[in-house]
Amino acid sequence: MQYPQPITKLIESFSKLPGIGNKTAERLAFHVISSMKEDDATTFAKALIDSKRQLFKCPICGHITDTDPCMICADSHRDRSVIAVVQDPKDVIAIERMRGFKGLYHVLNGVLSPLDGMGPEDIGIPALIERLKDENVKELILALSATLEGDATSQYIAKLLKNTDVKVTRIARGLEMGRSIEYADEVTLIRALEGRRELF
Amino acid sequence: MQYPQPITKLIESFSKLPGIGNKTAERLAFHVISSMKEDDATTFAKALIDSKRQLFKCPICGHITDTDPCMICADSHRDRSVIAVVQDPKDVIAIERMRGFKGLYHVLNGVLSPLDGMGPEDIGIPALIERLKDENVKELILALSATLEGDATSQYIAKLLKNTDVKVTRIARGLEMGRSIEYADEVTLIRALEGRRELF
Repeated sequence: MQYPQPITKLIESFSKLPGIGNKTAERLAFHVISSMKEDDATTFAKALIDSKRQLFKCPICGHITDTDPCMICADSHRDRSVIAVVQDPKDVIAIERMRGFKGLYHVLNGVLSPLDGMGPEDIGIPALIERLKDENVKELILALSATLEGDATSQYIAKLLKNTDVKVTRIARGLEMGRSIEYADEVTLIRALEGRRELF
Repeated sequence: MQYPQPITKLIESFSKLPGIGNKTAERLAFHVISSMKEDDATTFAKALIDSKRQLFKCPICGHITDTDPCMICADSHRDRSVIAVVQDPKDVIAIERMRGFKGLYHVLNGVLSPLDGMGPEDIGIPALIERLKDENVKELILALSATLEGDATSQYIAKLLKNTDVKVTRIARGLEMGRSIEYADEVTLIRALEGRRELF
């Protein structure tokens, strides 16, 4: 037996989401059908559509936004001399959540990855370089993932800016909180040793 | 920092779903925003709304449907002399999936539960009794959950039909497939013993 059409469609939509298998999709669909208020379902539907139609990349920094420029670029209280380069809008959110960083961002929306055909233009590196010319930026903090591609991207950007006035830094590598040395991988240990600092 | 409004709303909607926490809701929302095609998001939104607007309970059996009567009640190939009484539309789906049952259904959409204020009228027992008068039903199979409330409901229905021509049966209790006796609970073991059958 098949489900009535509206149920099938809803299950299909849920099961297209990452990490949601058929069983869970079925459970979620039945939750919508039998327990969710019609208002909530309408709000949900509207949120789905709005999230696709009202959001775009900030023309200045590439962060996802519904205003032009984004809230961060528009905020006059932020330190315009520091720009953190990140890979993904989610990284902006993660850094903002810790409330310690007051500079601006540049979201690449990717990293260099020749195998996937991602070159410098695809992740907007020319736009970043252009931005550094326009503004009075003193430091560029590279906050990309600690992966091969992330590191290659960091090095590529650092090289481009070698003979400019912009100081290019990279966020520290080392042991994560709670990690015991015994279980840390070799590269992490090497980086942690290299990055050692005097305590007093 | 807050997310732009459309992201917040989408995260809120996802996190209202059962078993979906804030982190997962965030991940799903970002999937919709950055990876989902606009067409798919529109289809998803439409499925949500249609599932609330186009579905209703079949006036005959109480199963969820978008046609009146439902596909099962309308199917002339089904055996109209047997009705299985279940608690929930999902139970109909589960039984249909095994393809062994060719009778009709009656979906109570609940069980008797005095503490929650669920009486016989709330789960449509009068309608079930009425239905048995109208049709040429020979057997009513009680296929409710093996819980206190499920059992109480089964007994209540069986009592009501005691002096009628309708045979009332209940699906078997016993060990589930793969279960070893060592780990089965007492009540299951007692029921399994009571329900023993000759092998040859």
